[in-house]
Amino acid sequence: MPDESKGINPKLITAFVSSTRNVLSMMVGVESEIGKPALKTESKPCYDVSGIVGFSGEVAGSVVISFHEEAALSIVEAFCGERIEVDNPDFADAIGELSNMIAGNAKKDFGLEASIGIPSVIIGPEHTLARLSDVPCIAIPCSSEVGNFSVEVNIKQVSKVTV
Amino acid sequence: MPDESKGINPKLITAFVSSTRNVLSMMVGVESEIGKPALKTESKPCYDVSGIVGFSGEVAGSVVISFHEEAALSIVEAFCGERIEVDNPDFADAIGELSNMIAGNAKKDFGLEASIGIPSVIIGPEHTLARLSDVPCIAIPCSSEVGNFSVEVNIKQVSKVTV
Repeated sequence: MPDESKGINPKLITAFVSSTRNVLSMMVGVESEIGKPALKTESKPCYDVSGIVGFSGEVAGSVVISFHEEAALSIVEAFCGERIEVDNPDFADAIGELSNMIAGNAKKDFGLEASIGIPSVIIGPEHTLARLSDVPCIAIPCSSEVGNFSVEVNIKQVSKVTV
Repeated sequence: MPDESKGINPKLITAFVSSTRNVLSMMVGVESEIGKPALKTESKPCYDVSGIVGFSGEVAGSVVISFHEEAALSIVEAFCGERIEVDNPDFADAIGELSNMIAGNAKKDFGLEASIGIPSVIIGPEHTLARLSDVPCIAIPCSSEVGNFSVEVNIKQVSKVTV
């Protein structure tokens, strides 16, 4: 792995992997396959619908949960109990709420003081969330019966803590 | 104005208007015309390049500074002293840094305890930053000699403070 990855606490990545799997399984009944996390060195496009949640405290940065449109539609339908189209404000609310749950659930496993912000939701085919050069980014590819999605962890630890 | 706007402290909006004008004038020599702030009630597309900065503390939410691609290219060129293309990581760093300056500068005028997160930068033609239903959004249209941009303030005050 490039040197940059040395700054990433593996516990943060593990927390997001298990949180993603648990929230989707419990809240929408979707079982997901989690691929191998990899350091992202280029700004590659995300999928079509992304929820971003910022972290502050002993960790700084954000997590992005990005879905293929079809996967997002299926997940929101399971979450809300009815089909909701992308341009309906309830759609963004549902993606924001699920992103918030994934971030909040992961935070509990950090073993660090951290608080999470209000989610932002981005809709647009293959928008790019550009990587900032001073924040390492780990991309976790995920697949499920309703389609593919990814979890991107753009986080740096801002204080040294023994874990 | 709809009832929803009652929750927005006008001081926050004024802080972003003057911060945007000052940062662009001082840092990149771009003088901007600030249009009339308006409550955004629908999820309309942003421009092509957006910087998002999250707030936490006595205010929660985010500010989005969104540029037409040509305006972003000109502003980044003035900021960095050379032409930088959109797919170069330095381009996102520059947009992130300017967004961070605008947010940080505005924060000083809030009269509230607030901290700002690490910026996220989104690149994609007419991506939509979906409005969450529980956070009011004020859009401030801006124009300049290098092109149009907008500042969207998606913020709610989370504690009552006399200002």
